[in-house]
Parts: sequence; structure tokens; C-alpha cells
Amino acid sequence: MARFFVDALPDEGAVYSLTGENAEHAKVLRLRPGEAVSLCDGRGTDCPCTVQPGGGLLAGACVPCPAEPAVRVSVWIAFPKGDKAEHVIQKAVELGAAEIVLFPSRCCVSRPEGKALKNKLERWQKIARSAAEQSRRGVIPAVRAVDSYAEAVTQAAGAELPILFYENEEQLTLRQALALGAASAPKQVSLMTGAEGGFTEEEIARARAAGMQICTLGTRILRCETAPLAGLTAVMYALGEM
Amino acid sequence: MARFFVDALPDEGAVYSLTGENAEHAKVLRLRPGEAVSLCDGRGTDCPCTVQPGGGLLAGACVPCPAEPAVRVSVWIAFPKGDKAEHVIQKAVELGAAEIVLFPSRCCVSRPEGKALKNKLERWQKIARSAAEQSRRGVIPAVRAVDSYAEAVTQAAGAELPILFYENEEQLTLRQALALGAASAPKQVSLMTGAEGGFTEEEIARARAAGMQICTLGTRILRCETAPLAGLTAVMYALGEM
Repeated sequence: MARFFVDALPDEGAVYSLTGENAEHAKVLRLRPGEAVSLCDGRGTDCPCTVQPGGGLLAGACVPCPAEPAVRVSVWIAFPKGDKAEHVIQKAVELGAAEIVLFPSRCCVSRPEGKALKNKLERWQKIARSAAEQSRRGVIPAVRAVDSYAEAVTQAAGAELPILFYENEEQLTLRQALALGAASAPKQVSLMTGAEGGFTEEEIARARAAGMQICTLGTRILRCETAPLAGLTAVMYALGEM
Repeated sequence: MARFFVDALPDEGAVYSLTGENAEHAKVLRLRPGEAVSLCDGRGTDCPCTVQPGGGLLAGACVPCPAEPAVRVSVWIAFPKGDKAEHVIQKAVELGAAEIVLFPSRCCVSRPEGKALKNKLERWQKIARSAAEQSRRGVIPAVRAVDSYAEAVTQAAGAELPILFYENEEQLTLRQALALGAASAPKQVSLMTGAEGGFTEEEIARARAAGMQICTLGTRILRCETAPLAGLTAVMYALGEM
């Protein structure tokens, strides 16, 4: 079923006309009269619609989008090489991330700034929007960047449960960090992973001092584009979101 | 730490010389005397070595590879379009799959056969080997293909716990299928996912009749290259392997 994010949802019974990129997308999809489509306000509410003979969309009653997880997971990734960020963003949105934040770290080879970063963020946000439509998300996760590791740690550590995955950590597992025996499941989690070269010991010490849980993702060494998605998937599974 | 798969491990105290592709790889890595490297027999045993001034590897005592999961997970994927299979194979090896098997299904656009399939399998096996080295696996997972959906279902259903992920399934969760309250965790799991177009109802009925558990992966619709990796990650997490 085709899905479009729109600024404002129509009232029940109204006929809605797609505009701009949505209209172009609809043309590509060759929607047929009678077909069911879905409009979403990007704030968690869906409006089921039926395509009319003239191409308008007859609106049904709005419903909460069923695909939004109860837990808000921020995915923090150090700038990776090449187009790996695009991959991680697309998959993280599919897997239910609330936002994706990129940051520089000591081992980052790529460290876009200024105009180059602005262009990348625009492209990444489009990828997030498209992935949100495809996976039937109810919100479009924001993609943003911070300009220092210190700022990344400060912000990420502000979550109810802030976790950093470190390949040299051997003790603390994600299961322990999630402390599932606790009174209630965390509502807000941040997951931080490094670039190709990982983190330095100083960076780990800084994150620990800021209150982040330093966790292992197991005995197999995951690539920098695999680790954030494995961590996100495990959190979603652990919290009953898949 | 560099890691090489070799046919036979040296005795403790012997000096081993890398050959063939391993020797070429070592040249690229510019190993230095004193550096620690690891040889692995691909059957779960590691031999830690130290690079000698002449380039030989002084063998230490063999140890079981710590990165092999106790559960054997076979990842069954319908032939996807383009180079998505390469992506899934690389990541599935990182995440601990025991083998990756490709199969044709009704919705497959790509369906390589004969010489083309043989070439692809050779390429995929190289990707699996490289991913196994990089992620420190103790075995090189096999990549193979079967030539019909019926054969895929028959083989996959033979696992202790055979699971097929279906986007239209709304009831049975992976957690329920894993039946974690059961007396013992499954030692052998097969996970089957479809191509871009998913599965037909007939295909699902056939898998169910063969004894496969038809599961949902949650309310978000995952792409065909995301679903097998999300399922594999969740199984590894659920069974205490990460």
C-alpha cells in the first residue's frame, strides 16, 4: 500500500489532492481508482484513503499509526567512510530509530563540514523520509549532526539509558545494560557506535564519565555499519517491539 | 589483529609460512615482526602466532575460537535483485550465521542458474570467507543454493526450529516461536525470508504444512535485505549470543 507524508491530514470524507513530490511519486506508482493508500502526518497519525476516479484521495477516519515503537531510540554514529551513512540511516529508520545523529571522533577519516555537510544532511533526510514511507513509519526520523565528540557524548548521555558499544568491552552485555529485571522498561535509549577505527580509550573514558554504559555486542567483531543496526535490532527485540 | 584461515594449524613452537592468497593478504597488511596474528582452521580452532623477523609466524598453543555461537542458524534467503545477496551474506557472517542458502521463489525477479549461478556462488563464498576473517569467526560459513522453493522448504523445515518471516503474519512473534520458557534453547534454527515481492499465500501454506513457524518481525515493513539480518540478530540476542 502506497504511503505519503503530508503536512496536514484531511477531515474524514474530504477529497485530498497530493502535491509536489508526493504527486510525482503517485504518478510513478500509477495509482488506480479504488486502490487503498495511506496519508500520514509524520507525527504518528495515519489517514486511510481510497483513490477516486479523478485521482483525488477520499479520506477515511484517522487512526494512530501502528508502526511506531513505544521506546524512543536515538542512533549515534561516528561519520563513516563513503556512503555507509546512507545505508545505516535507511536501515535504522526501517528498524524503528527515532533519530539518527552523526558525530566526529578521533578515528573518523571522513568529517564533513560546512556546505558539504549541509548537502549530505539534506540527502540523508530524504533517505530517512523514503525509508519511513516504505517501512510504514508514523514519523520521519530526523537526521542531524553535531560538531564534536564532546557534544555528542553530552547529548547522548542525556537519554534515560545511554549505551556505547565498544569492541574492547568484554563484561557488560546489552542485556545487563537494559536491566530487564528493572521496574519498567526504558522509554528513551541512545546507542552510540564508532567509525571504522573504533574509539580511543580517552573517548571511552569520557563517555563513561558522562554516564554512558559501555557495552559489548558479543564476541564477533561487527563492521561500523553493522554494529548500530545490530544494537538497534537487539534493543527493539528486547523491549518487545518486534 | 590479522586473521587467516589455513588448511592445517601448525604445532606449538613451529614457524608457519603463509601461502597463496593469505601471503598476498599479509603483504598488503605489512605485518611487522613482533605483531600478533591468528591462524584458524575454519573448524572452530584458533592458533595465536607472533610474526618473526623473516616473516614466518611462530605458533602458540591452539585454543577454541571464542566467536562461534552455540546455536547453528541457517539463513535462507530468496534470490534478491542486484547485489543485495552480497550485502546479506557479508552481514549474516558477521552476525554469526552457520550457513547462507539462496533459493528461488515465485516473486524472485533474479533467478541465476547454471554457469551464472556457479560464478555467483564462488564470489559469495569469497565474501563469506573475508567476512569471517574480519569478524573473527572460527568457521567459514558455507554459501549454497537450492534449485526450487519446494527443496528449500524441505531442507529448512528439517531444523530443530524452522522459522519463516512473513509480512502478513500478525500473530506469532519471534519471541513466541523461540518459546524461551521451554526446557532448553534450540541448538539449530533456520530463518527464511522472501525476495522483494515477498511470498505468495501458496508458498506460506506449503511452508506451514512442512512444519515451519510463520512469524512476524513486527509492525514495520523491512526490506528483503534487512529482514534476514534483523531476524538473525534477534535470534542471537534472544539466545544469549550477543
